[in-house]
Amino acid sequence: MRRDGSAAGEWVVFQAADAFRLFTGIDPDPDAERMFAHLAEVSVSDPEEGMRKSIATVSLSGPLTGKLPAAADAGFDGVEIFEADLLSSPPAPEEIRARAADLGLNIDLFQPFRDFEAVPSDILGRNLRRAEHKFAVMERLGADLLLVCSSVSPDTIADDGLAAEQLRLLAGRAAEHGIRVAYEALAWGRHVDDYRHAWRIVELADHPALGVCLDSFHILSRGSDPAGIEEIPAEKIFFLQLADAPYLSMDVLQWSRHYRCFPGQGAFDVAGLVGHVLRAGYRGPLSLEVFNDIFRQADAGRTARDAMRSLIALEESVSTRLGPEAAGLVPPPAPVVPTGFAFAELATPDTGRLSGLLTALGFARTGGHPTKPVELWEQDQARILLNTGDPDSPTGPALSAIGLETPDPAGSVKRAESLLAPVLPRRRGPREAPLDAIAAPDGTALFFCRTARPDHPSWTDDFTEVPSDPVPSAGITHIDHVALTQPWHYFDEASLFYRSVLGLRPDESLELADPYGLLRSRAVAGPDGAVRVALNVAYVGARPGAPQIPWQHVALGSRDIVATARRLRAAGDLLLPIPVNYYDDLEARHDLGAERHRTLRELGLLYDRDDHGEFLHLYTRTTGHVFFEIVQRVGDYRGYGAVNAPVRLAAQHTGSD
Amino acid sequence: MRRDGSAAGEWVVFQAADAFRLFTGIDPDPDAERMFAHLAEVSVSDPEEGMRKSIATVSLSGPLTGKLPAAADAGFDGVEIFEADLLSSPPAPEEIRARAADLGLNIDLFQPFRDFEAVPSDILGRNLRRAEHKFAVMERLGADLLLVCSSVSPDTIADDGLAAEQLRLLAGRAAEHGIRVAYEALAWGRHVDDYRHAWRIVELADHPALGVCLDSFHILSRGSDPAGIEEIPAEKIFFLQLADAPYLSMDVLQWSRHYRCFPGQGAFDVAGLVGHVLRAGYRGPLSLEVFNDIFRQADAGRTARDAMRSLIALEESVSTRLGPEAAGLVPPPAPVVPTGFAFAELATPDTGRLSGLLTALGFARTGGHPTKPVELWEQDQARILLNTGDPDSPTGPALSAIGLETPDPAGSVKRAESLLAPVLPRRRGPREAPLDAIAAPDGTALFFCRTARPDHPSWTDDFTEVPSDPVPSAGITHIDHVALTQPWHYFDEASLFYRSVLGLRPDESLELADPYGLLRSRAVAGPDGAVRVALNVAYVGARPGAPQIPWQHVALGSRDIVATARRLRAAGDLLLPIPVNYYDDLEARHDLGAERHRTLRELGLLYDRDDHGEFLHLYTRTTGHVFFEIVQRVGDYRGYGAVNAPVRLAAQHTGSD
Repeated sequence: MRRDGSAAGEWVVFQAADAFRLFTGIDPDPDAERMFAHLAEVSVSDPEEGMRKSIATVSLSGPLTGKLPAAADAGFDGVEIFEADLLSSPPAPEEIRARAADLGLNIDLFQPFRDFEAVPSDILGRNLRRAEHKFAVMERLGADLLLVCSSVSPDTIADDGLAAEQLRLLAGRAAEHGIRVAYEALAWGRHVDDYRHAWRIVELADHPALGVCLDSFHILSRGSDPAGIEEIPAEKIFFLQLADAPYLSMDVLQWSRHYRCFPGQGAFDVAGLVGHVLRAGYRGPLSLEVFNDIFRQADAGRTARDAMRSLIALEESVSTRLGPEAAGLVPPPAPVVPTGFAFAELATPDTGRLSGLLTALGFARTGGHPTKPVELWEQDQARILLNTGDPDSPTGPALSAIGLETPDPAGSVKRAESLLAPVLPRRRGPREAPLDAIAAPDGTALFFCRTARPDHPSWTDDFTEVPSDPVPSAGITHIDHVALTQPWHYFDEASLFYRSVLGLRPDESLELADPYGLLRSRAVAGPDGAVRVALNVAYVGARPGAPQIPWQHVALGSRDIVATARRLRAAGDLLLPIPVNYYDDLEARHDLGAERHRTLRELGLLYDRDDHGEFLHLYTRTTGHVFFEIVQRVGDYRGYGAVNAPVRLAAQHTGSD
Repeated sequence: MRRDGSAAGEWVVFQAADAFRLFTGIDPDPDAERMFAHLAEVSVSDPEEGMRKSIATVSLSGPLTGKLPAAADAGFDGVEIFEADLLSSPPAPEEIRARAADLGLNIDLFQPFRDFEAVPSDILGRNLRRAEHKFAVMERLGADLLLVCSSVSPDTIADDGLAAEQLRLLAGRAAEHGIRVAYEALAWGRHVDDYRHAWRIVELADHPALGVCLDSFHILSRGSDPAGIEEIPAEKIFFLQLADAPYLSMDVLQWSRHYRCFPGQGAFDVAGLVGHVLRAGYRGPLSLEVFNDIFRQADAGRTARDAMRSLIALEESVSTRLGPEAAGLVPPPAPVVPTGFAFAELATPDTGRLSGLLTALGFARTGGHPTKPVELWEQDQARILLNTGDPDSPTGPALSAIGLETPDPAGSVKRAESLLAPVLPRRRGPREAPLDAIAAPDGTALFFCRTARPDHPSWTDDFTEVPSDPVPSAGITHIDHVALTQPWHYFDEASLFYRSVLGLRPDESLELADPYGLLRSRAVAGPDGAVRVALNVAYVGARPGAPQIPWQHVALGSRDIVATARRLRAAGDLLLPIPVNYYDDLEARHDLGAERHRTLRELGLLYDRDDHGEFLHLYTRTTGHVFFEIVQRVGDYRGYGAVNAPVRLAAQHTGSD
């Protein structure tokens, strides 16, 4: 991908196939990894000031010495030092302190200190000895706040008075070192598992160096009402840790240790909780503490930016909820939701393989770029660009860019920048009309367009009309949706990206059975369905050498899919064959009448329906890394034919097995 | 790996590094994958007849046309056709029938038919229509047993009489096609979620073509007592589906769909349940129905062999439990449990890098092979072989083989063969003493040895004594354990392999935090701890380009680790540096006295203790793909110092970050 400054004024060409291979996790390519890291760097700008933002080092992958610059680069103000990260780190605490200071990071918390309170006196002695060792480390580290989790030890006694007495003692010792203690109720604490209970003990202990730490996971996973937070005096809320999580019916400890995610990536109302904490008067940092198996493996810099994006979006949500009470919050510029697809751009070594297919699909080549090897193909409102100008072209066509219609391209970019989306160098057409783009998490370029509107220069003006024989329409009217591969370590990042940057709404996450494994799929869509993007990802890491599947596709809306299908059939062997067994089952499931069943079977059409309407669709064979889907929505069908995905996926493997 | 017939009478050399790279999932290598497939083929022999054995196609990866030969090759007698596999398969039912017949596979069951019973009459009509379509497919397929799962539909009514009436109707229709119906209680059925309830309905329906299907997952996941199975008449138990699972506190549907495993790989007492079913008089097939995210991705042939191994081991367990009642069961030959390590063999391009280290560790080069480039190094009962004879040697030393002491080498091989372990071509020494070996799941060769015993030729007789200067002992007495990388798609296979083939006992599975992700680790050990093998695996698929870790190591037992450590320190910079922060924390956790803490810190020793004793250990730096650990067990400490693994793993990354 050429993305240096020299590209301004030119069409930038993307090597989508590299990104494809990289981010599927199937074919590792260190160069592409570096490329993406660079691409992401472009985006990091200082967000405007708002709440102070912090992140626990356990949320990021790699050694402590790499986590600190990752957090700083993403714009965090501080970190929580997770003790295990320090223990396994060669630099001494003094050196970590110096590195953090050099990076402009405050050490907001040292954590966790476990199994302290409400124990018999002999154990108390050992625990205090342990604490003194930690105070010494904290002094060297320059950390003045210690997190104490409610005990899970069999030694602890259900005695709030004793817990308060011992925590008061601990706070007193801490205060001698200039350290304060934040007591937190673990959701699986032996006797103290609720934040209100922790607060009662802290209140009872009544020591100025003792307060509570609130953690959204521990509170919301238990279904506790966070409104009670407002009853805690602001000066007694020493710290606020934030994590989201999907709703999972499972052991809460395992849920917490493996499946936490950043706010907005799960199902919890984290914004609601933060609202209560701010109403209580808390003005300390918003700090992310996320234990997640996948983040542990992911690139730390990328995770840190994802984390910061989640906090910026969270600040916006809280600000909206609180309204005038939201003093101190600085929300980003409002989202500009795209209203349709302007184009889909395919990078391809040559146009030969695609021009026949596009012609069969009823597209006409209507424009050519005067200086760049880019062709414009059109049919009604559906526009495809073929770009043969990529010097490192992939082995076959791949989806490299999408044009999104937006009422305010400049506003779209401003929104994207404020949410750390990687902004790409501008394309400028002959009329010097700026065309702004950002990079999606899978490397696809998203262009903000305003096509053929009097109030804005149009990207189509870059193209010169091409004389060609008229092609009869095949009934295709628009791009219905695009389906994009997501790097599987970054699936949650992707849905947050589309939700926060573009203001699209994520659907439920689905599992689709491919013959070689389960896939996850999640669609994001605009409020009126005019923009729909299906995000797909392999469910877990693929086996080395396992069969690959073509992930990217462009779904074209047809007003008469039967006519489109007949025309495609007449043009040759272009369509993906569907097994006859599918139709036997379809007849068992739906009684559509003999003639309709015969048509579906004859044309290889797939069928689905929901409470709102019907869905007919078919697929072309794959060319390179991309294929086309033709869809017709009847009534207000809202899905994507997921029920048929296993059959489609199996058909795509057939022949390559 | 040269493994053709010509290798008989020769030392066979393994490319352990290839296997290493392949099976870590980090560095895919199609050649190595093929190699392993070949290696596994060697093992597949006809097990002696016992219970008929079947497997559901959903348990295996890939297209249906690949699942059938995989099942046949592993020795299965039949399959359950999972409907989704048929729907997405291009061959028509008749062709699948013919292929199964050609492979000697019976189609034992067609499944699942859902949401049938206890519905209002209009829905009943639709459901019967649906059933007639399926009967037609089954006739074409040559399947005469249909699985009907208890309904989960909101349409179903809690009315056993109605359920029985409608199932009787269904069975009547089925019987007209020569088909029988097996009704199964899903653990999450809307009204029927217990096998006893399903049986009451079947009893009430009282139709000869209607019986129950019992599924160990649905019964044991709910904690139901399987003893009640004995009250069901044998002729009414139409089918038995088997799956194991780890105990997980989670939604039972998700648990069932993603985490089932083969019997012996989970926590359920599947053998106990089968005992009840056999006591009830059931003589149908034992059929595996396993939904597992990882199996969906794994190589089908390999999974099928793993599956068959689990059934053979299950048959043995059931036979042991039932004693004289176990008519019709044919257990494999009894296990011969290894009693110690004979040697560890390292494949290495040259001996230079290792001979200095071995000398520093107190090993002396005592023997050389007269015709092959293999050296024997010894210290007390610890023996290391260095093999430089691999023409495609890896980039650095790697553990390629382990010698296990066994009281009966021939018996060990017989056991291994009967459990489908890949048997490797024999090594024969100059005295023509046979030396048998099998391949472990990660490709490591396991040799069955009887070292220096009068009743058996010794492998050591192959070596000629080498004159060398005496090396003073460093206190090392034996090999304490070896740690082996497992291919991460095959971790459950590995623990079943060691348990069933060698009779070792698996410990609990642990999670270890590496800076770049969580690892799973599970040790298997003989009853007296004389043989211990730690099986390690990356928890989920690694990110492309993520840092690698050296997985394989040989842990040497020392009688005086302080002396061993001093000697190693004196010999140069051979040991893995441990961060000082570790020792600060160790002092906080354990009060071992100032002098002992000073010694640990000075020598870079790691410390752990449990209820039975203490554990001191240290690590050498990594050479190629292998490193050594030195351990001293004080008292009866039973672990492996897992608490220190994160520090060790981080230290191994340091410098490579």
